[in-house]
Amino acid sequence: MRALVFDKTVSFQPRRNEPTTADGDTLIKVIQAGICATDLEITKGYMGFTGVLGHEFVGVVVDSPQKELVGQRVVGEINIVCGRCDLCLSGLSSHCRQRSVLGISGHDGAFADFVRLPALNLHILPKTVDDDQAVFVEPLAAAYQVIKQIKLDGRKWVTVLGDGRLGLLVAQVLRNAGCPVRVIGKYPQKLALCEKWSIRSRPLADIVPRHDQDVVVECTGTASGLELAMGIVRPRGTIVLKSTAAVGKAINLAPLVVDEINLIGSRCGPFREAIAGLAEKQVEVASLIHRRSRLEQGVEAMEFAARPGVLKVIVSIG
Amino acid sequence: MRALVFDKTVSFQPRRNEPTTADGDTLIKVIQAGICATDLEITKGYMGFTGVLGHEFVGVVVDSPQKELVGQRVVGEINIVCGRCDLCLSGLSSHCRQRSVLGISGHDGAFADFVRLPALNLHILPKTVDDDQAVFVEPLAAAYQVIKQIKLDGRKWVTVLGDGRLGLLVAQVLRNAGCPVRVIGKYPQKLALCEKWSIRSRPLADIVPRHDQDVVVECTGTASGLELAMGIVRPRGTIVLKSTAAVGKAINLAPLVVDEINLIGSRCGPFREAIAGLAEKQVEVASLIHRRSRLEQGVEAMEFAARPGVLKVIVSIG
Repeated sequence: MRALVFDKTVSFQPRRNEPTTADGDTLIKVIQAGICATDLEITKGYMGFTGVLGHEFVGVVVDSPQKELVGQRVVGEINIVCGRCDLCLSGLSSHCRQRSVLGISGHDGAFADFVRLPALNLHILPKTVDDDQAVFVEPLAAAYQVIKQIKLDGRKWVTVLGDGRLGLLVAQVLRNAGCPVRVIGKYPQKLALCEKWSIRSRPLADIVPRHDQDVVVECTGTASGLELAMGIVRPRGTIVLKSTAAVGKAINLAPLVVDEINLIGSRCGPFREAIAGLAEKQVEVASLIHRRSRLEQGVEAMEFAARPGVLKVIVSIG
Repeated sequence: MRALVFDKTVSFQPRRNEPTTADGDTLIKVIQAGICATDLEITKGYMGFTGVLGHEFVGVVVDSPQKELVGQRVVGEINIVCGRCDLCLSGLSSHCRQRSVLGISGHDGAFADFVRLPALNLHILPKTVDDDQAVFVEPLAAAYQVIKQIKLDGRKWVTVLGDGRLGLLVAQVLRNAGCPVRVIGKYPQKLALCEKWSIRSRPLADIVPRHDQDVVVECTGTASGLELAMGIVRPRGTIVLKSTAAVGKAINLAPLVVDEINLIGSRCGPFREAIAGLAEKQVEVASLIHRRSRLEQGVEAMEFAARPGVLKVIVSIG
């Protein structure tokens, strides 16, 4: 099969072996998949992953031990878990101690004709969610995770730092949760999207940190983003840290202690809420699609997705 | 008056001007004061402070607009606040936007014959708290802050990282709160103190990080301490970060996101609980006194306190 593979560099491989269902997995024919910041981080060495990239996909089941799944259009949760370790048994299966992660750690991803996943990971899509919306289910679930982890109410002042793919999803989810949310970003065309969605926004250049926000959701993926977050959150406020790309650099964390800030790491989220949010048109994603590429152009598509200001790049496969 | 002053270097000054009560402050004759890690950090440039050092003290009121205070033996809260800003009015006065901090920021400290503070900051000591215990009220209050910020119950596994002055206070407070607490430290004589207090302890060299602790309280004051904390806390667990000294260095924070860790900065705490804990002998501090020095020997006392493994150094003044 065709596949986009990372092994020191990204390459398009026209004849990679297809995944099998020998171990009880379900086989899915991929329709299309989205490029995520994590894919770009992997190409810089994140997670030490080698294999087929891609974890935001929609596809059709072609083979499964659960026969009722065959022919269904599905999206898939990315953590492949054991179901037996202490974390799985305590309800924290996304943190399974033996997990592999689709296209990120120990499990080939979805930039390929076929991908395999346990049936347990799959969610059948309603007809009201089209293929373009479907590739946003995984990142949108990560956005919904924010409101799972922190208690919000209408009186809280919330800032989303970063107007990238994830920031714009998080902003919509927070707006829907009833927060007076504000997006701080760099790109006029993205901040214009916020206006279209009735979300307040401010250019980064206009921001004077005033330690006055109750909650800051850090979605810039940069060390300076976390530093700015510490400057705009109020004492005893909360910073939600969404992206691993933001870290690994020298950052002065003293303000966390002096201002007694609560910093919450946030990763994958609930697929059900994300699918419902898309089906009910509570979250708009069509505007986030920046370009479509064919799998054969995957290398160039990855390069394009890495450019500043680019939103979602979709790789058409099936 | 005599004073120990930091201005580029630490020096003993035999004839510094006494503080006045002209602005409504209360004047206190200092009996003795403790050297804290923050004092040592200040001498490395922390907070850009210049002036009289010292913020852990006990003294006797010699002049006050509140006449009933005169002659009382007191300890003092270190944040000097405005009482009018949004944070003061919302119950977060220790984070006052106009605050100065005793011996740390904009307000001369207690390594001197006299110190001034607002009457509001003072707590009259019961006879059941002696002068040695009294100098531990401020750091012990910071230890009590941990159980103000996080919900603990008997089923949580808690590790205190660091067997220094603060770590040993935090460990006692957590033990009293009913936690199965464990101290990880470097110094056999300090870990022996834990045994005396019926607190489990483990030498740092024996630790294999297993991502299995519900709560880790980081009290080492080192960047490697925070890294180890991220290795031993479980996914979705909590790290309480107690010391600003731990930070400002390059640390890879990716595990915070991947493991969805909750990192809580923690600073000053409740004096009332600390005084009660000492009065009721729930917390033992006499074993933590490593050396006593006279104010004239303050420079050497600071140098001694900075040595690895040294516990509390008390500066006798009055």
